[in-house]
Amino acid sequence: MVPGSVLEDYLDPGSMMEDRADPGSVMEDRGPPHHLDNQPTEHGGSDNPSKNKAQGFVLVHAGAGFHSESKAKEYKTACRKACIKAVAELREGVCALSAVTTALVELENSPITNAGTGSNLNIEGQTECDASVMDGRTLNFAAVGALQGIKNPILVARKILLESEKGKLPAGRVPPCFLVGDGAYKWAMAQGMASSTAAALTTRQSMASFKKNKRKVELAGQLQNPQKRRSSNLTSDIYQPPMDTVGAVILDSCGQVAAAVSSGGLAMKHPGRIGQAAVYGCGCWAERANGTNAFSSASSTSGCGEQLVRTMLARECTCAMQKEDAHQAILETMQNKFIYSPFLTADDSVLGGVIVLRCQESSENCEFRSGSRAFMVEFLWAHSTDSMCVGYMSTQDGKPKTSISRLPPEASTGRSVAIEGGVCHLYNQST
Amino acid sequence: MVPGSVLEDYLDPGSMMEDRADPGSVMEDRGPPHHLDNQPTEHGGSDNPSKNKAQGFVLVHAGAGFHSESKAKEYKTACRKACIKAVAELREGVCALSAVTTALVELENSPITNAGTGSNLNIEGQTECDASVMDGRTLNFAAVGALQGIKNPILVARKILLESEKGKLPAGRVPPCFLVGDGAYKWAMAQGMASSTAAALTTRQSMASFKKNKRKVELAGQLQNPQKRRSSNLTSDIYQPPMDTVGAVILDSCGQVAAAVSSGGLAMKHPGRIGQAAVYGCGCWAERANGTNAFSSASSTSGCGEQLVRTMLARECTCAMQKEDAHQAILETMQNKFIYSPFLTADDSVLGGVIVLRCQESSENCEFRSGSRAFMVEFLWAHSTDSMCVGYMSTQDGKPKTSISRLPPEASTGRSVAIEGGVCHLYNQST
Repeated sequence: MVPGSVLEDYLDPGSMMEDRADPGSVMEDRGPPHHLDNQPTEHGGSDNPSKNKAQGFVLVHAGAGFHSESKAKEYKTACRKACIKAVAELREGVCALSAVTTALVELENSPITNAGTGSNLNIEGQTECDASVMDGRTLNFAAVGALQGIKNPILVARKILLESEKGKLPAGRVPPCFLVGDGAYKWAMAQGMASSTAAALTTRQSMASFKKNKRKVELAGQLQNPQKRRSSNLTSDIYQPPMDTVGAVILDSCGQVAAAVSSGGLAMKHPGRIGQAAVYGCGCWAERANGTNAFSSASSTSGCGEQLVRTMLARECTCAMQKEDAHQAILETMQNKFIYSPFLTADDSVLGGVIVLRCQESSENCEFRSGSRAFMVEFLWAHSTDSMCVGYMSTQDGKPKTSISRLPPEASTGRSVAIEGGVCHLYNQST
Repeated sequence: MVPGSVLEDYLDPGSMMEDRADPGSVMEDRGPPHHLDNQPTEHGGSDNPSKNKAQGFVLVHAGAGFHSESKAKEYKTACRKACIKAVAELREGVCALSAVTTALVELENSPITNAGTGSNLNIEGQTECDASVMDGRTLNFAAVGALQGIKNPILVARKILLESEKGKLPAGRVPPCFLVGDGAYKWAMAQGMASSTAAALTTRQSMASFKKNKRKVELAGQLQNPQKRRSSNLTSDIYQPPMDTVGAVILDSCGQVAAAVSSGGLAMKHPGRIGQAAVYGCGCWAERANGTNAFSSASSTSGCGEQLVRTMLARECTCAMQKEDAHQAILETMQNKFIYSPFLTADDSVLGGVIVLRCQESSENCEFRSGSRAFMVEFLWAHSTDSMCVGYMSTQDGKPKTSISRLPPEASTGRSVAIEGGVCHLYNQST
């Protein structure tokens, strides 16, 4: 029998760091551990995890931004579906790279997220998507940017990654790792991938937001005073909710990690604008344990793309995971390398979020299980935005958990950090 | 009187590290210092440096790849012109960001380099350019990718950078830092920048290479054996010379640094392919001295874009410049974080080059000059490609120096590193 997972929310959901000048305000009280029973999943009885040997863990996000209470259920549903699909694959023994793509496809297909179908439209009313994926096992990475006419940009990114692993192209040409715009679309078509119409990618909601925002931009453009035109108050303008990029991090049964991210970009962006979701080191990162790194770790970011690019937040957070105290490491990274980053001194509000996991093969609690491998997964999410929607699930869980993490009412958006997370122990039977 | 610069080639030009397993093979003999006289520049008498107070230094490259002896003069001329233009501006007291752009424009305009006019053509016979610039003072960065129809891509990157510093766009939108493809072109047009025809950007040589390569790709594509189609031997295929991207690093009279890079990309690349020249941390990096960093430092890379992206070579080299021994730091970075990088274990040949400088305000040699500021600039270039063409000049020099650094005949291309460099002392009169 594979035991039920032990999932401990080791941080109080209210845990946050509001004021950099007062590190004492970090609430490090760890809430009581709770145990999830091995209930049947929503997929039905055939998914009884105890019948399967392959193990794994998934953590997804449906964006760091602002999630209204009225739509909370829809965001959570998107995360839940992504977790269930990914876990179903992990139980079948697929690798982290495949499972992370599966999670992303599900999130892109949700019309409520800012990725794939229902993405924010650019200032010309077009859907233009960025996406990237990184395989912690091979350290391979691939990305697409400003991609139109494709339902699932993450599938193109993954295809680029897989093609690049086949070696050189005819006549010794180096295969690409990053394709953008019309060229990326043509490449996908040449690979036999399915195209999609602009209409199919646009939802009633994305079009309604576009029309409302377009009017706001036109009105602002008519103002003569450049100071008024270039308003510095994000929340009073068109960005509600602006940044609900999606992403996922995965641990598979071999202890390998992968990360992915997908985004429709900022609402009313200029055509051709690339955000963090397509930029190496900025949107996602995954790195296996090795001689230097004790942990395999992976992360995926969401928020203001330009700020996430300039701070390389995904890579920074993944690297920080090698420190002993994961929570403290993420807190320091979010504060020192993001909110108060020397690369963002001109910005009075720094908006972003990250999901991150790290994993270590564990000898603890494993002695009595002959022939088994045990992993300890620590997972966290942190954000400086009003809210962040996440979901997570292990192969040993009956159903996923979802949460909309929110900054406390007194916290200053873009200057405070909320951090939550948990620990999960996985036991793999090797026989 | 401003004294003449003391330019010491502190490394033997033959200094190289051929075999990772034998660190003893590094030739650390430092050649005798040589002094450049303050000869008039090629611009004529009006450039007598002693009449100007503003000081600075420029190091440029015309690519790491293969530079034939027959074309060596042309490459050197391109570097020489770029140095002279940049130094003329530095003497006028312009900032590093402006001077680095000026150097790049000159390099892009040279038909022999793979940037701007004369760029490698993609597989559809189009000129598609990547370029980026980073200002070490503000740590701001901007890039364009897969850009067609623009003579000087670096000017669009610089314009994006400058526009982003004006604050938010109407209705609180975040200005872009990275634009690609048709969207980037339209943005440049909306800014009133000049367009160029495809014919004007194509040279007789770039078209001739394209036609020859096209035939090779077609022949290779007809081969039934996938192993033969995907040849792993770079040199026997279309890549001669493939990677002559251009770049520059600058120190200005305020001690600020900037870096830039521009590239037409790999010959016969897929349309929409983005290389390191457009990717943050990979094509160029510039960072001022601060509480953590003793040196201001900057770098610009050239070579196989995909390998330079996956290793973030520009950022790695710039960070390495904080170590005490610059030469050793670059050697270790080129070996451990590039050629033998864990991110490139699947590649049997790792092709790239970097120019890098670091600067520290110096108290030494300065005591006798009341009211003056003195800087010590250390500059290096390193490459694993057959050759790399560089040029450098300080405001105190009468003319630039150029060099085509070559791996020794016995060295293994893509596995060995050649490193050269020098030191320059600059004295600024503040009164």
